[in-house]
Amino acid sequence: MIKEIAGGVAVPHGFRADGVSCGIKKNGKDLAIISSEVKARAAALFTTNKLQAAPLKITQKHLRNGIAQAVIINSGNANSATGEEGLRDARKMAKLTAVKLGIKESDVLVSSTGIIGKKLPMDKIKAGIEKLLPRGGINGSRKVAEAIMTTDTLPKEVAVTIKVGGEKITVGAVAKGAGMVSPHLATMLSFITTDALITPAALSYVLRKSVETSFNMITIDGDMSTNDMVVILANGLAGNKEITMKDLVKFQDAITFVTSSLAKMIVKNAEGATKFVTVKVKNAPNLNAAKMASLAIAKSNLVKAALYGCDPNWGRIISALGSSGININSKKIDIYIGGVIVAQNGVMTEFNSQMVKKKMTQRTFTILVDIKIGNEEATAWTCDLSEDYVRINSSYST
Amino acid sequence: MIKEIAGGVAVPHGFRADGVSCGIKKNGKDLAIISSEVKARAAALFTTNKLQAAPLKITQKHLRNGIAQAVIINSGNANSATGEEGLRDARKMAKLTAVKLGIKESDVLVSSTGIIGKKLPMDKIKAGIEKLLPRGGINGSRKVAEAIMTTDTLPKEVAVTIKVGGEKITVGAVAKGAGMVSPHLATMLSFITTDALITPAALSYVLRKSVETSFNMITIDGDMSTNDMVVILANGLAGNKEITMKDLVKFQDAITFVTSSLAKMIVKNAEGATKFVTVKVKNAPNLNAAKMASLAIAKSNLVKAALYGCDPNWGRIISALGSSGININSKKIDIYIGGVIVAQNGVMTEFNSQMVKKKMTQRTFTILVDIKIGNEEATAWTCDLSEDYVRINSSYST
Repeated sequence: MIKEIAGGVAVPHGFRADGVSCGIKKNGKDLAIISSEVKARAAALFTTNKLQAAPLKITQKHLRNGIAQAVIINSGNANSATGEEGLRDARKMAKLTAVKLGIKESDVLVSSTGIIGKKLPMDKIKAGIEKLLPRGGINGSRKVAEAIMTTDTLPKEVAVTIKVGGEKITVGAVAKGAGMVSPHLATMLSFITTDALITPAALSYVLRKSVETSFNMITIDGDMSTNDMVVILANGLAGNKEITMKDLVKFQDAITFVTSSLAKMIVKNAEGATKFVTVKVKNAPNLNAAKMASLAIAKSNLVKAALYGCDPNWGRIISALGSSGININSKKIDIYIGGVIVAQNGVMTEFNSQMVKKKMTQRTFTILVDIKIGNEEATAWTCDLSEDYVRINSSYST
Repeated sequence: MIKEIAGGVAVPHGFRADGVSCGIKKNGKDLAIISSEVKARAAALFTTNKLQAAPLKITQKHLRNGIAQAVIINSGNANSATGEEGLRDARKMAKLTAVKLGIKESDVLVSSTGIIGKKLPMDKIKAGIEKLLPRGGINGSRKVAEAIMTTDTLPKEVAVTIKVGGEKITVGAVAKGAGMVSPHLATMLSFITTDALITPAALSYVLRKSVETSFNMITIDGDMSTNDMVVILANGLAGNKEITMKDLVKFQDAITFVTSSLAKMIVKNAEGATKFVTVKVKNAPNLNAAKMASLAIAKSNLVKAALYGCDPNWGRIISALGSSGININSKKIDIYIGGVIVAQNGVMTEFNSQMVKKKMTQRTFTILVDIKIGNEEATAWTCDLSEDYVRINSSYST
């Protein structure tokens, strides 16, 4: 049984967190820390963008031994496309954090988000790191969730408890999203903490599997960031018997619950979004085809503009499906919008357009596409493309 | 020497054209014909969308022998996702046109553009075909260019003459674009006519080659239509000696000039577009990498929103480049916006932001990306993503 509790990354045993304002952004918190009392087993996934930002390179290096004890994160500046100096700055962030906490530099992971191509203001970051005072509990988590926001308007955090072998295990997490979100491995920033004792192999496996159906199944604008990462730290302080690959199901479910919750929060709080739409493709020939099809529909600018306008223009859905590259039979496609069938066997039904429009005025609804040539399904989550998206993104750097 | 002349598809010898209003659209012309006095050699390229519309299937069937004598085209309704009835309707359009012109049904090609998923109003189309009076010259061409428009605000046509072996050859063409335009083979509708005598193999080759660097290198919204086609008809009435693969260069240049001109017109007249931007990637390891890189930048919603806002946010350009999948060296990337270098060897230069902003307020400018790992280059054309794009597309069907 997964039980949702209040808080985020600082509620599992032995984790602490803080977030402060150090002046990288004009307003609001912009520097965060997550740390563990003891060394934790760690796993991570990174953007598949070929031009990974400096902090990703340092984090990958520090993760080689599968051990970490803290993560230092700034928003407002991505430290991406910053050359050798960027690498030095990311390393320095790790070092300053290590000195502050009295831990090893190689046990500190580094993450940045914000504008690409500008140098980090290291003086401000240095002063900020000195100000950080990591604490356990709900308050510390919230500060992290706030400090990693960029164009997000809401902090995103979640925590759950489960019982494994009679012992209570806690999982907490935060995320940030909002824009430049496309499904290629990790698609934003997310930090997950747990007090579970778990083998490194199982931890990696669980993270990858949960990301496949959560962060990898959301799309906002189809743009892929240079900075995305999902990190999980497991410090083993729950006192459970080590979770191995054999009894992994419960833990997997908890992590998937956490990553799915955050993935949906990211889409709901996307730049300019007025709607949260679930795109489900069922009866596909295989899982990959189901994913490709649902994401092709979820990504289409024209589908997303129609969602914004509450326009039941299902022709755009079928066109996006056709462009997905998967094999389909044009005579076997049923499409439902908000539960109403609008196309059956590939042609329009006599649906009540006003009724469907009304369904589409709701904040949340589902597009279901049944392609009737197999029995696999996948779900993607998307938002609408609004005039506000354009407004926000036409003047982000200035 | 390529000489541009007035007119479009009805200026080459023996070609005629007309466009009328038959009531498919609320306003304006919506039915067009292009015909040749004699049978013409024909070649075509079609959308790679798996759900091709009914007219594409009929056109492909009628093209199997490489011969055609007329094309009938309607706008306002794509006859796509219309099942068996759609196929019958497309066949009927060919038949009615054949009867009208006194030619073979299998020599008539059919093309439709407009909303997907609605039945064709065949009574209106039948009455419209009866009204068509194809004529040679500038006037007939213009009517076709107008009748195939959907959300286009300007008709698109071009004509050129060249000399091959002492004989004058004329090439004319029309196109429509505006939205749902993404580079996967033919990406909109375009019809090209020529009085050249040319082998069928050479005609196919020339068409494909010219499309690769023109229609396949433009992007508006990354959405791929179910109806796109590019058709070329060569009726051999110029009196030239048959052009073979050997002396093809001049003819290739003329066709590429025509398709490139139309491709650029399509982007300039894109839905909501306020800017026309050339994206050139040079010194790529191979041609395919150069194309992938330039298109990845040209397609990015975030780059396009920044273009709209005149925001020199080159971080989005480098991020899109990184997401293109090609191999790059992050330390070797130079980026120029409007001729001003904004990043050198992967990091920001001390550029004058106000000056670059001013360059970006122009209707037309170039983004040049030098990746310095080879010597191939490619050029893509794109437009900005504006609030008007969202406005136009949020209520297209209603």
